Amino acid sequence: MNYREESLKKHAEWRGKIEVIPRVEVDTREKLSLAYTPGVAEPCLAIQRDPEKSFTLTRRWNTVPVITDGTAILGLGDIGPEAGMPVMEGKCALFKAFGNVDAIPLCIRSKDTDEIVRTIELLAGSFGGINLEDISAPRCFEIERRLKEDLDIPVFHDDQHGTAVVVSAALLNAARLVGKEIAALSVVINGAGAAGISIAKFLLRLGVKEIVLCDRAGILTDTTAMSDAQREMAKITNPRRINGSLADAMRGADVFIGVSGPNCVTKDMVRSMAEGAIVFACANPVPEISREDAIGAGAAVVGTGSSEKPNQINNVLVFPGLFRGALDVRASDINYEMMIAASRAIASCVKEEELTADYILPYAYDPKAHAAVAQAVAEAARKTGVARV
Amino acid sequence: MNYREESLKKHAEWRGKIEVIPRVEVDTREKLSLAYTPGVAEPCLAIQRDPEKSFTLTRRWNTVPVITDGTAILGLGDIGPEAGMPVMEGKCALFKAFGNVDAIPLCIRSKDTDEIVRTIELLAGSFGGINLEDISAPRCFEIERRLKEDLDIPVFHDDQHGTAVVVSAALLNAARLVGKEIAALSVVINGAGAAGISIAKFLLRLGVKEIVLCDRAGILTDTTAMSDAQREMAKITNPRRINGSLADAMRGADVFIGVSGPNCVTKDMVRSMAEGAIVFACANPVPEISREDAIGAGAAVVGTGSSEKPNQINNVLVFPGLFRGALDVRASDINYEMMIAASRAIASCVKEEELTADYILPYAYDPKAHAAVAQAVAEAARKTGVARV
Repeated sequence: MNYREESLKKHAEWRGKIEVIPRVEVDTREKLSLAYTPGVAEPCLAIQRDPEKSFTLTRRWNTVPVITDGTAILGLGDIGPEAGMPVMEGKCALFKAFGNVDAIPLCIRSKDTDEIVRTIELLAGSFGGINLEDISAPRCFEIERRLKEDLDIPVFHDDQHGTAVVVSAALLNAARLVGKEIAALSVVINGAGAAGISIAKFLLRLGVKEIVLCDRAGILTDTTAMSDAQREMAKITNPRRINGSLADAMRGADVFIGVSGPNCVTKDMVRSMAEGAIVFACANPVPEISREDAIGAGAAVVGTGSSEKPNQINNVLVFPGLFRGALDVRASDINYEMMIAASRAIASCVKEEELTADYILPYAYDPKAHAAVAQAVAEAARKTGVARV
Repeated sequence: MNYREESLKKHAEWRGKIEVIPRVEVDTREKLSLAYTPGVAEPCLAIQRDPEKSFTLTRRWNTVPVITDGTAILGLGDIGPEAGMPVMEGKCALFKAFGNVDAIPLCIRSKDTDEIVRTIELLAGSFGGINLEDISAPRCFEIERRLKEDLDIPVFHDDQHGTAVVVSAALLNAARLVGKEIAALSVVINGAGAAGISIAKFLLRLGVKEIVLCDRAGILTDTTAMSDAQREMAKITNPRRINGSLADAMRGADVFIGVSGPNCVTKDMVRSMAEGAIVFACANPVPEISREDAIGAGAAVVGTGSSEKPNQINNVLVFPGLFRGALDVRASDINYEMMIAASRAIASCVKEEELTADYILPYAYDPKAHAAVAQAVAEAARKTGVARV
């Protein structure tokens, strides 16, 4: 099937992938008086006395906006706020289907960091958490950091952390499969934007020591870094302080993780990797190297972003369960411990006896996976003291 | 039933009066690929090429936020943004139940006019129209005016215009009942805030000539006006330029409309009105004068805001159908012609043979009334050139 052509047709039929429905009946005078005036005055006053009650007397506890400024939509780039809405709506549908989270799509007509932060802060009283989406780097780092500082509800930039969580889950199982320890892996990440930087930080937390980040200019170093975020990464990655191209970085590496662009990895580059090479070519819709070419060049395990191939690495596996868990315990934050718990929960959904080079991750539409993530995240929130119920 | 006590219990059970559900299935690889990646890229690009397509390829065409800053919630006043959410959620439930509009509750943590306007403008690409709610006067006038100027989707402040539309509908039928012409009525409005001012302007458009607006200081005049909005009203109302108290204003009047506070009208004041007096005491939850007292003092027709009495005057009769009609024709504005059409449509739902002093308005939960409003509003939008489909 040509998904993109068919999808356009379907979207024109659907006229929206979500809708808002009442959870109460209002078809008699009495029901109307309870859900609306005059009855509604009492819950209003209860929240005025104790604003925390907005989490029990309204839908706030389960409501999350999926917010973008339209600057980094899928692999399409800065296509504008309205043009990002089909993605936001799609995520909202997935949030409900897989996490029972009530998510609403919002696009912001501004690229100004201060303005985006302020807009979200002003609206935060309506929500139980905030999902940032498809906001370009490096602005996304500051936007997320400031919101996390200022708000006492969880803030999560999915392109950074959702990707890091699912890539790491895939890596945990791939490493198990090829019989290598996580701590001993040498990992090359291509793409030093939001996703690449977040994956690198996440793998450091998981215990990986040897990470080389690359970008268009090759290996990221003090001199090639383009932003504060990249300069920070140049310091904490690349322990051998090597220079050169992506091909130089990949020579002898155990793992390649691509969150970059189409066709930037050759078969020769994969051939130069260590025995039992793991290749995650996540660029969408066209990967860094095709699954077939990577396998042909000797890769032991290959994952891509494609839903039509085995081992789809997609953060759909992450955000519904992650928010479900965070909302269930009214977490004040989504911290690394919660994200690592999510990653391990996803990996553990593939049982030892099921694990093959073609099955390292559960399917995105597997309800058990989302439930496992939710439970693990809630537990981690409790353990780290950010749970409030 | 003690609605307020029972409502608090119900709200704690409901934990939210609305929810967001998917309109698409995502439980297989193929369905996921159509609703989300990779398929979703194509509708995104279609909207990038033509942003108008956001009205056909996403739910934007049917989505309206119910937005408050929490400063004028019901009759409760400035109780804060979160405390206003039970009302906003209730309206969202009614929007769907009676108008099939997908409405989402948003509260803004700011009382600053510029900041509220800017926040809503930045989000406008997500929506097909904007419903402002329970924002205090006089800020609500400037906020609405600026948004109407800047946005090309309908903007509607329900407390002003929804109230004006339903009060006028009630007045059309009440006047018919007592055999008086609209143009010949002498009308006293108590409460010169958002609702009172909007009702006065609306009645002027309907052809009423003799309107006296009152506020806490008595009859509104150049010298008692407290804001620009009130000064404007002092100029265009009170043609006989009378001074004095509410009691002075009501002497000999045909109609009293209260959008003020509890118990400010006495039986003597009603007795002093003209034969066939019409009394709409809309203050909530305690009216300006009780229905029983007004009837005892000789009023011919009495309406209140209460759902427990005949003739409930509630803007639930207005906003679902009004937005349904405006969204159906993708109106760029909600203008007076559309609002007057809504008012006449509501009035006409009570047939000549049904009209009595105890039945001047259809019931708020009558689906026929909402459908009639939607149709009339869409027609008026087409006639006045603001319809775009």
